Amino acid sequence: MDNSLGKSFAITSFGESHGDCIGIVIDGCPAGLGINVDDIQHELDKRKAGARVASTARREDDKIEIFSGIFGGRTTGAPICLIIWNKDIDSSEYDVIKNLPRPGHADYAARVKYGGFNDFHGGGRFSGRITAGFVMAGSIAIKLLATTGIEVLAHTVEIGGIPAAAKSIDEIRANIGLNEVNCADAEAAAMMVAAIEKAKRQGDSLGGIIEGMALNVPVGLGEPVFDTLEGNLAKAFYAIPAVKGMEFGAGFAAARMTGSRNNDQLTIKQGKITALSNNAGGISGGISNGMPIVARVAVKPTPSIGQAQPTVDMAIMEKAELVIKGRHDACIVPRAVAVVESMMAITLADFALRAGLIPRVLK
Amino acid sequence: MDNSLGKSFAITSFGESHGDCIGIVIDGCPAGLGINVDDIQHELDKRKAGARVASTARREDDKIEIFSGIFGGRTTGAPICLIIWNKDIDSSEYDVIKNLPRPGHADYAARVKYGGFNDFHGGGRFSGRITAGFVMAGSIAIKLLATTGIEVLAHTVEIGGIPAAAKSIDEIRANIGLNEVNCADAEAAAMMVAAIEKAKRQGDSLGGIIEGMALNVPVGLGEPVFDTLEGNLAKAFYAIPAVKGMEFGAGFAAARMTGSRNNDQLTIKQGKITALSNNAGGISGGISNGMPIVARVAVKPTPSIGQAQPTVDMAIMEKAELVIKGRHDACIVPRAVAVVESMMAITLADFALRAGLIPRVLK
Amino acid sequence: MDNSLGKSFAITSFGESHGDCIGIVIDGCPAGLGINVDDIQHELDKRKAGARVASTARREDDKIEIFSGIFGGRTTGAPICLIIWNKDIDSSEYDVIKNLPRPGHADYAARVKYGGFNDFHGGGRFSGRITAGFVMAGSIAIKLLATTGIEVLAHTVEIGGIPAAAKSIDEIRANIGLNEVNCADAEAAAMMVAAIEKAKRQGDSLGGIIEGMALNVPVGLGEPVFDTLEGNLAKAFYAIPAVKGMEFGAGFAAARMTGSRNNDQLTIKQGKITALSNNAGGISGGISNGMPIVARVAVKPTPSIGQAQPTVDMAIMEKAELVIKGRHDACIVPRAVAVVESMMAITLADFALRAGLIPRVLK
Amino acid sequence: MDNSLGKSFAITSFGESHGDCIGIVIDGCPAGLGINVDDIQHELDKRKAGARVASTARREDDKIEIFSGIFGGRTTGAPICLIIWNKDIDSSEYDVIKNLPRPGHADYAARVKYGGFNDFHGGGRFSGRITAGFVMAGSIAIKLLATTGIEVLAHTVEIGGIPAAAKSIDEIRANIGLNEVNCADAEAAAMMVAAIEKAKRQGDSLGGIIEGMALNVPVGLGEPVFDTLEGNLAKAFYAIPAVKGMEFGAGFAAARMTGSRNNDQLTIKQGKITALSNNAGGISGGISNGMPIVARVAVKPTPSIGQAQPTVDMAIMEKAELVIKGRHDACIVPRAVAVVESMMAITLADFALRAGLIPRVLK
Repeated sequence: MDNSLGKSFAITSFGESHGDCIGIVIDGCPAGLGINVDDIQHELDKRKAGARVASTARREDDKIEIFSGIFGGRTTGAPICLIIWNKDIDSSEYDVIKNLPRPGHADYAARVKYGGFNDFHGGGRFSGRITAGFVMAGSIAIKLLATTGIEVLAHTVEIGGIPAAAKSIDEIRANIGLNEVNCADAEAAAMMVAAIEKAKRQGDSLGGIIEGMALNVPVGLGEPVFDTLEGNLAKAFYAIPAVKGMEFGAGFAAARMTGSRNNDQLTIKQGKITALSNNAGGISGGISNGMPIVARVAVKPTPSIGQAQPTVDMAIMEKAELVIKGRHDACIVPRAVAVVESMMAITLADFALRAGLIPRVLK
Repeated sequence: MDNSLGKSFAITSFGESHGDCIGIVIDGCPAGLGINVDDIQHELDKRKAGARVASTARREDDKIEIFSGIFGGRTTGAPICLIIWNKDIDSSEYDVIKNLPRPGHADYAARVKYGGFNDFHGGGRFSGRITAGFVMAGSIAIKLLATTGIEVLAHTVEIGGIPAAAKSIDEIRANIGLNEVNCADAEAAAMMVAAIEKAKRQGDSLGGIIEGMALNVPVGLGEPVFDTLEGNLAKAFYAIPAVKGMEFGAGFAAARMTGSRNNDQLTIKQGKITALSNNAGGISGGISNGMPIVARVAVKPTPSIGQAQPTVDMAIMEKAELVIKGRHDACIVPRAVAVVESMMAITLADFALRAGLIPRVLK
Repeated sequence: MDNSLGKSFAITSFGESHGDCIGIVIDGCPAGLGINVDDIQHELDKRKAGARVASTARREDDKIEIFSGIFGGRTTGAPICLIIWNKDIDSSEYDVIKNLPRPGHADYAARVKYGGFNDFHGGGRFSGRITAGFVMAGSIAIKLLATTGIEVLAHTVEIGGIPAAAKSIDEIRANIGLNEVNCADAEAAAMMVAAIEKAKRQGDSLGGIIEGMALNVPVGLGEPVFDTLEGNLAKAFYAIPAVKGMEFGAGFAAARMTGSRNNDQLTIKQGKITALSNNAGGISGGISNGMPIVARVAVKPTPSIGQAQPTVDMAIMEKAELVIKGRHDACIVPRAVAVVESMMAITLADFALRAGLIPRVLK
Repeated sequence: MDNSLGKSFAITSFGESHGDCIGIVIDGCPAGLGINVDDIQHELDKRKAGARVASTARREDDKIEIFSGIFGGRTTGAPICLIIWNKDIDSSEYDVIKNLPRPGHADYAARVKYGGFNDFHGGGRFSGRITAGFVMAGSIAIKLLATTGIEVLAHTVEIGGIPAAAKSIDEIRANIGLNEVNCADAEAAAMMVAAIEKAKRQGDSLGGIIEGMALNVPVGLGEPVFDTLEGNLAKAFYAIPAVKGMEFGAGFAAARMTGSRNNDQLTIKQGKITALSNNAGGISGGISNGMPIVARVAVKPTPSIGQAQPTVDMAIMEKAELVIKGRHDACIVPRAVAVVESMMAITLADFALRAGLIPRVLK
């Protein structure tokens, strides 16, 4: 079940970048949830962010199709299969990489692992396009979580070393759709766009950091000692190609604080227990503690760049030089924002179901 | 199966900090692996690191017992149950925290989640002592990996903001046992010890960063798109209390590099494909790529500190002040090194079995 | 993961009887297995058995489509998604059963469980048509097992109380395609056909018993104590609608024998250990013992019959009479033969992979 | 996770017949369930049934120990580890079987599978004694189900071909403890006892059939299409050594009925929907349908018999004769009754939790 994630709300991914379609099966969604194609499409369209500034030649005006599990506008309790078709595929440019693994890509590792039988065109299973399935599933999870008041949000907090200023939740909600990099800080966003354009001109690429948040999460989600909220979120994030690091709350900065500084002190506000800070990122002992869940995800620069790169010709086992043709995202961070949001929603929906927070039938 | 981890090499944890024992069941270990009590004890004793400089009052001179799965000095293919007994427990000091959740701890979240029925003495299931079970299982995984030539190593690379200088693998192997903080850089180690002692005197605590490495890992371990090597390692690390961040290879730094800088270029050395750098930390597309696996784990400062801290009295729902009595680790980083090493070994053993790298019977 | 089965060779089912399609995702199939549409179609067509004698109005001349996981005629190591489209659906006849649960069907239980949101048309997820997905996956499993010499066979051994005479493996192989009931005994087959036709005329239906066998299974498949070969086969069989009993080897008859009679005595033939009888059905202690695997599966008579039946009108909670319109299989046993064969193949393929009997890449 | 069963209420088995102990870890039991040693001991003592008539030399006056997960007489939400120690073990008699696999036992299959490293003394992992762990877990499941009103019952319905007359639920409840064979029909019980004694005198053994029932099960437990109630019960039953067949409701007899006879017609009694018969054994489409769950389990005769039996000497690969020394159960059916009951309870508890029927915290 390598291509499945989750227990009570579980997703199974299939499809390749240049195959017939990209699909996802969602198993465990309660019956009775109102959902329609537009809900899913709306979420999927978020992946188009940054289309102009950092886009690939491939236009993703994908229309989702519902194959199963939704009837009369409501989930039936049966597995939900959603797909998008792959169209206008030009695999010709990929023949060059058959024997020339791209630096920074999975080409070499995949070729060895699958004995050369893997479909490498467009990156195959290792393409970012696979995450379109995650986002389709995420749209269901987001709707499901909404029945409990839980809201999931993600936004760009850094690109090419340019950090966004801290913004309030309301500002984040309001601003992330307003620019091409899904950043809540308009000034930083403009600088990020300029940096991406410059990298693109240089045949290079940039990485960045995405922050995912979940609000109104009740105390108690997460199942220690192994199925922790942190552990399962981390595992979900690492399914996103290009993610190389992640942290919760103060994260790596916490490792440099003293305990007296890092501990989130508890207090009572309006009759309810709350913390005076959120260095824990809303998770204590692997369980949600009632504060907002805050995770930061490090995305490496896109490995496909325009510059010539040294590699190896595996057919003749000699050094070679690779020039990747076609246009590629100079920065996938803006598009990955919706994926981070989706992975959070999927993971939280799974835990919410396991905790009995969501009934098996929604009326 | 919240307390189980892994598929082919799977561990199940049980026991509480102040209960009868800490135990672990290992399911899936091939038959015929030579193992004895001393092998496991040796690994477990590594957790004693930093005993003098940062120790708790509790002396962990634990002796492991083998309950099942090993016969005549070899694994039988049956589940292996290993335990250590809890002795000399003084739970009295914990009655004060019954209604006063400790800031930075799981006390509050756990109390809400388990309706107050959880055994909170000594932190119960949220105690670092639970990781003794992980290390016992890790010792089996390390022996199992050794049959394939894979070696797992962990060492302290930062404590209290004091970084260790980069050292060669040989230096790391040679040095980590020589000081109390399991650090390969002797000079930095001395400064770390001093910083921990100072924090202890101030009733405070420190965090740090541990690096885990795996050497001689063949290409192809990891099962994308969800059971990635990165994802499963991350999930395993987050089972260690106090871990709040983790990254592979260049990690968060990669997010600030350009693609041309971050991509690990491929070349041929002595007829074999290898990379000129290891920013990927040995993992591409969720699969081992033949380079050393390198992970860095951020450990927050111990939440139990000597200073008085604001909290809440949950019995009367009023603000309160908490003074935690007894002595506690001023820094758990040195002791967590063996746990990071174990989680890496457990995860890699699981993937090695899944990839067919290790036979079901060892002769 | 309620709609997933297996660990190393895992299938995920989706689709409804009157939805867009019936699909299956196969995860874990090694890369490099040669497979084409015809292989799968051939297996799927076996479900047409008995079409004339016991057929539904629905003509299943389904053409399978490969959505993912197969490239250039070989498996890629990625999840394989296979589907058939649902065509020529007439759901109108089902509106009558919306509030009138059919006796012997899952209508009532499903309506309560899913709060009425389940798609009941054509039985929805409870239709025998779902098993078309199992058979598509089974065709892959059969090809995979063939690489190790394992052969799976199934045939009808009883319908409507009419037993088939015992036949040799060769006779079974030769005969099962020759009659409409997939029975190796031609004489009994003729009587079975007559009995089905009689039942059909009476607006009634018949059940029967299917025997599944696996040949050349090496010693050692199955993972006790819970993932036994028997337990996992049984679980797989019970996913077939209408199965109400199953047994291995002597099965229920063994419960009436003495130990001296039932024990399979061991001997040596041509230098190899073998048994003088096979009351164990090829499985000892949950593990294959080298003898043929033999399972017998009891299939109840089709619940959809032409006769009027008492039921309940759930809209008004009063007694009612139900007449099911349309034509239905008077006996599904002949068509279920391919499904039993597939469930055996899927389960054995899973265990063969887990035991390392099949490599991860086939060359 | 071969030695784990269940998802939400999951058990992990460890220990060997002649090792230190037999243990079980229960993961997922809600917090707050009142439980004490006597509750578990009471259930475990049921395995002593038939001690006089059919007993082994080994006296199982086992005292259970609670290692974790229960604090102050209530479950804590943490994994519960329960064990019994193995005492007074005489392994000497087993040296003879090291190279002489016992007919009807797993000796040969296990030796091949585990390369001879398995602990064969007393049957090791294949001993009926392993089921003591299942019963300990079953006692927790029974208590958990009781909070919802679900009651699980098992009784002997046939031994050595002697059937028990059908009895009412009340009679079954009242009678099963009154005789040595756990049979509700006193007359048949006397004949069964005589038959067992006769078999014992002849150095032979008998099998039989056990019926398991669950009462007051609400509509909707079971998760099709694969995690069906039937499939998971079947898998659980096959973990009991010596089980070779099982059926639900009319089972194999249903295969011989017409649909008009087998269909359970629905009606309304006291405002509630109910069925006029229970040929389905309380399960439709893999889901509980509100009628009593009824399963019948076929137990083969004990393979260990006093008579000399032909076998093979694996050390020299020649034919040999085996005489099994020591005393063995001439019929394990009476003792297996508690195990069947436990497997039903464990499986239903798992589904009850998955369906949200039982809260995560019991007050």
